[in-house]
Amino acid sequence: MNVKIASIGFGTVGQGFVELLNGKKDYLSKKYGISFSVVAISDPIKGSIYDPEGLDLNKVFLLLKEKGSLQDYPCTNKGWDSVKTIEESNADVIVEATPTNLKDGNPGLTHIRKALSLKKHVISTNKGPVALAYSKLKQLAKENGVSFRFEGTVLSGTPALNLSLESLAGAHVQEIRGILNGTTNFILTEMSKGKAYEEALKIAQQLGYAETDPTADVEGWDAVAKTVILSNVVMGGEIRVEDVKREGITNIGKSDIDKAKERGKVIKLIASIAKENGIINAKVSPEEIDGGELLANVNGVLNALVFKTDTLGEVSIIGPGAGRKETGFSLLTDFIHIFTKKE
Amino acid sequence: MNVKIASIGFGTVGQGFVELLNGKKDYLSKKYGISFSVVAISDPIKGSIYDPEGLDLNKVFLLLKEKGSLQDYPCTNKGWDSVKTIEESNADVIVEATPTNLKDGNPGLTHIRKALSLKKHVISTNKGPVALAYSKLKQLAKENGVSFRFEGTVLSGTPALNLSLESLAGAHVQEIRGILNGTTNFILTEMSKGKAYEEALKIAQQLGYAETDPTADVEGWDAVAKTVILSNVVMGGEIRVEDVKREGITNIGKSDIDKAKERGKVIKLIASIAKENGIINAKVSPEEIDGGELLANVNGVLNALVFKTDTLGEVSIIGPGAGRKETGFSLLTDFIHIFTKKE
Repeated sequence: MNVKIASIGFGTVGQGFVELLNGKKDYLSKKYGISFSVVAISDPIKGSIYDPEGLDLNKVFLLLKEKGSLQDYPCTNKGWDSVKTIEESNADVIVEATPTNLKDGNPGLTHIRKALSLKKHVISTNKGPVALAYSKLKQLAKENGVSFRFEGTVLSGTPALNLSLESLAGAHVQEIRGILNGTTNFILTEMSKGKAYEEALKIAQQLGYAETDPTADVEGWDAVAKTVILSNVVMGGEIRVEDVKREGITNIGKSDIDKAKERGKVIKLIASIAKENGIINAKVSPEEIDGGELLANVNGVLNALVFKTDTLGEVSIIGPGAGRKETGFSLLTDFIHIFTKKE
Repeated sequence: MNVKIASIGFGTVGQGFVELLNGKKDYLSKKYGISFSVVAISDPIKGSIYDPEGLDLNKVFLLLKEKGSLQDYPCTNKGWDSVKTIEESNADVIVEATPTNLKDGNPGLTHIRKALSLKKHVISTNKGPVALAYSKLKQLAKENGVSFRFEGTVLSGTPALNLSLESLAGAHVQEIRGILNGTTNFILTEMSKGKAYEEALKIAQQLGYAETDPTADVEGWDAVAKTVILSNVVMGGEIRVEDVKREGITNIGKSDIDKAKERGKVIKLIASIAKENGIINAKVSPEEIDGGELLANVNGVLNALVFKTDTLGEVSIIGPGAGRKETGFSLLTDFIHIFTKKE
């Protein structure tokens, strides 16, 4: 089987995925019998190229490194926009890796709808479309007999969705608690070591963990998006972003953390989801938790999820929640699962 | 699809599975389109019964509760031994839930070989056959076009194998560290709270966590079997039980634990597996680890595994490692995965 891939969006995540895929070429062929060509890349900044026979990936990465653009790539089909690439390229698998937009989900939502309608598999790391339209997109994929996978929308490559949906197949998830944002967990960890909020934020920005405008992380929006995805995908909810009670970490001072510490407690930004009488209750807020609790010992940029189930009690997974390679890896597992799992 | 099941061995685990399966009947049918009949049970103590049309499970559990035996179950085919049940019943799926024997793997090994050769799927919680003959059994399953699944041989229902083999598909596991035995972890946890070894062992026995003869747990044999399975199944090794360096917890005194505590350390029975130049190095032994380390905070009967991977850094899973319902649950996930995963 030779699979043709188009990457819609070619920033950190798209590049991370293609690089990983390229590096695992022999492994994929040997272990899973999958061979592939990346036939198209469409990115508003890097440029768009399409070769139905497959792009030369070494040339692609060399051009990006030397010129930061794909404009000089030698092929005839250039400058196609994202929608044209989805519609007219011969790709079987669309990688949707454009930035998250929690307002209306676009452009990702349009891309995914278009691709699924054309019976192309979609793998995505874009939180917007899944948080806003999960059940409709899943239904659309089903109607068209293709896969829609999005492991990376929760904990990047750490298999939060695979664990709860597939490895725990047969269990009923009753509650979820977790640390879903690495940036705020890093800041809180630094503060517990004695740093002030502003200082901790600055270090996070210098290390590339926080954006110049850190609002999405520190006000809890990123964790809220992931909470909505977990609620709807894992717990069968139909909630929206505005249904999640949200409080960020900007009101937490060093003195709060010190006082908690004196009592053997730790402050963490906790996402929690519970279902009562069929109603989902979801919130993201700083909580003072016992120092011996598992989540209290998940530090730095690490993320964690605790699933409370009917048959197995609590099962927890801990791992990275962000990063170029890590998020790229989520797309690699999604890609492999298209061909190894029955939908 | 109506699947016919035979349970070979019907102790705690076999009963736990069938009970769970029966309770999830509607769910399995609705979510996965799977319906089933348990057609045969063969157990040297409880008795053996076979009805090609399916047994009445309520009657089975009532008889066990009232008489502790299946002898009075109303059917014509009774007293078949395990091999005859595998050979002559119409079961498609054989549940191998006889006790672990690390010497020659029997009777489980014979059961599994027989069933796979007859093109019947096998799901098992028996550590012996997997620790002693994994690659041969996997090959036999492949040749016969059937599934051989054994999630419960490592952390009972906590999906250690599914996580590393399937949810992390595409990642290369370079190292594994973990707490693989709940009994010893419980004893060490109690000792860290001030109890002496003998006292902690006694509590573990009273709570049903330790056997009357606790050798298999406290001398590390149980953890060694799981270490061999992880080495061979997840890391592609071909090691044997005797290749694992082993030290139990019987030489650990309260004073060792207290001294470690003074230095901010914790003593845990750690299984570790690493691969260097293609050679697997595996051991099970008490280690003094830093109190802030994740494994140091996994207490009581909980188990944990840390997978070090090429693409994703460290990913950890924590959950129960034993129990009737928990181990029964591992068979339920194995059962579902026969029909939802491509081999």
